[in-house]
Amino acid sequence: MPTAADTAAMRRAIALATRGLGSTSPNPVVGCVVLDAAGETAGEGWHQRAGGPHAEVHALRAAGERARGGTAYVTLEPCNHTGRTGPCARALLDAGIARVVYAVGDPNPQATGGADTLRAAGVQVEGGLLAEEAEAGNTAWLTSVRLGRPHVTWKYAATLDGRTAAADGTSRWISSAEARADVHRLRAEADAVLAGSGTLRADDPHLAVRGVEGAVQPLRVVLDAAAGIRPTARVLDDAAPTLLVAGEDADTRHLPGGVDVLRLPLHDGRFGVHDLLTALHARAVRSVLLEGGATLAGAFAAAGAIDRVVGYLAPVLLGAGPAALADAGITTITEALRLDVTEVVRIGTDLRITAKPKER
Amino acid sequence: MPTAADTAAMRRAIALATRGLGSTSPNPVVGCVVLDAAGETAGEGWHQRAGGPHAEVHALRAAGERARGGTAYVTLEPCNHTGRTGPCARALLDAGIARVVYAVGDPNPQATGGADTLRAAGVQVEGGLLAEEAEAGNTAWLTSVRLGRPHVTWKYAATLDGRTAAADGTSRWISSAEARADVHRLRAEADAVLAGSGTLRADDPHLAVRGVEGAVQPLRVVLDAAAGIRPTARVLDDAAPTLLVAGEDADTRHLPGGVDVLRLPLHDGRFGVHDLLTALHARAVRSVLLEGGATLAGAFAAAGAIDRVVGYLAPVLLGAGPAALADAGITTITEALRLDVTEVVRIGTDLRITAKPKER
Repeated sequence: MPTAADTAAMRRAIALATRGLGSTSPNPVVGCVVLDAAGETAGEGWHQRAGGPHAEVHALRAAGERARGGTAYVTLEPCNHTGRTGPCARALLDAGIARVVYAVGDPNPQATGGADTLRAAGVQVEGGLLAEEAEAGNTAWLTSVRLGRPHVTWKYAATLDGRTAAADGTSRWISSAEARADVHRLRAEADAVLAGSGTLRADDPHLAVRGVEGAVQPLRVVLDAAAGIRPTARVLDDAAPTLLVAGEDADTRHLPGGVDVLRLPLHDGRFGVHDLLTALHARAVRSVLLEGGATLAGAFAAAGAIDRVVGYLAPVLLGAGPAALADAGITTITEALRLDVTEVVRIGTDLRITAKPKER
Repeated sequence: MPTAADTAAMRRAIALATRGLGSTSPNPVVGCVVLDAAGETAGEGWHQRAGGPHAEVHALRAAGERARGGTAYVTLEPCNHTGRTGPCARALLDAGIARVVYAVGDPNPQATGGADTLRAAGVQVEGGLLAEEAEAGNTAWLTSVRLGRPHVTWKYAATLDGRTAAADGTSRWISSAEARADVHRLRAEADAVLAGSGTLRADDPHLAVRGVEGAVQPLRVVLDAAAGIRPTARVLDDAAPTLLVAGEDADTRHLPGGVDVLRLPLHDGRFGVHDLLTALHARAVRSVLLEGGATLAGAFAAAGAIDRVVGYLAPVLLGAGPAALADAGITTITEALRLDVTEVVRIGTDLRITAKPKER
């Protein structure tokens, strides 16, 4: 049975892990707390960026000699393989840790086995503490390991009556300033931000993160089958990296030299959702924020490729104007995409509703 | 300064008042608590139905001789006029009450003056305690006194993407059973429930209250310009009273004998919202629940005649299908009807969002 001290330490480790969201890809977020033999906090750490030290290494460094005979709390099973950094199981042994408590087993076949290695060396190992909370913080990465594609969050902002703009297309501002700022946090937590060509033409979106301290800019991905984007489009500036996804036959000669272009086949004039996600996964993208376009969101919904919905609902009525989601391939109520609401919070004057599809 | 005991007694009186919602029209809901001279609860009461005793009378009867030298807490200023029952100011004096604390001053010019009468007779009178809470419970009645028309609640149920049905018109069930039950509570609290002819034709709604113990059935009001309603329509059964609103020239000879018909002029084939509300007000309707029809709701929104919005939002995505609100006369974002969210609660798997228009 875990003690209250165990639970408190793991909860702290989970909180530390979330600090890495958006900057560790293709790695998971991980947090670690080391208590010394007397149960006092000796060191804390979290995985900050791919290629950098793992959470355990940060925490062990901070603990120094106090780690000897102590307990390490890790949100993910310590890795057993030597990648760009040495295996954490080895580092824990070298530091003299007597007990390791982890939340979630490592599903990555290349990294798993850390618990066995530790046990074989005489360390007391317990798994599963606060596993659900830790998984929730690592959902994007776990989804990408499980499905072999990035985790997809669809974000939208709409009025209470479901409109994303007025009848004449105006939408500044439906959402409150606080909700707009919150979207920047979502972007910062994602590896890539995605918008379709309709949004590109209508809104000239920028898609970079503003106002989030220490944020790693996401990859801006714009779908543009015919590569009709203007060379002066805001998304092509140097605020963040950009990937232009164009059809195989698109003429891209008018684009500035540095634009990264990914060519994908078109089916009836559209990209395949899974083609796109596979290509992004191959580029180490583990989480995607779907930002723009009711049709684009509909295509993802139809493909079963929405893992989380974040809706900003503004207390506004319009009675006319475009909807947030279109062409999802659903014609009758029994085909509806049903979700579970996981969180509702007020953001400024708006509501932010987070939901995920019911288990399929 | 009110004491904690004053506040507790008034809060109790406000809770008692709400028990009358839906059955006191055209009177307000009122609650009363009487404490004896020692500060112990001696009697409680609430106004239960129009023509029945006022809250003060119920509470004084329960208190009996213990009222002498005690304090009465009333959610609304005690009335001063003799209507179907005697004035409450007189009843409080006769019972020997030494102090009266009320929440909201009576805005009704026929009933006001109770506080002055009591003061003139030597009673200590204080107004305004928890006025905001008490007003919230009496919003419908206060609105009707202030505007000379019934208070209007627009209720809708939609998916997260703002659809009230799938593309093929199916909608059973978007909302959870708990949300549908909650709608019956809303109906029971309203004097009248209103639906348009489109809803009448499409859904054959019943509009009566089911499953709410002790509920007074609301007046079912259906708008039917050409009186095209089928004599077998469910809304014409005897579960609750029904008012059919027809155009001045409509032929109603096919209707069953007992159907109550209100004739109103048509403007471009539609009833005027304020004509309708004025006619309902004249029939002692102080609160209306607007249930059916995106176009009907749009007409009310365009007329500035929505006082409260209650939206049941189901965690469902459809990507196609009708919207909850249409034709509200809003074409650009600056004309949007802006609201304040007053409450968000989970009802079953759904969210119930309550909002009211920002002060105009």
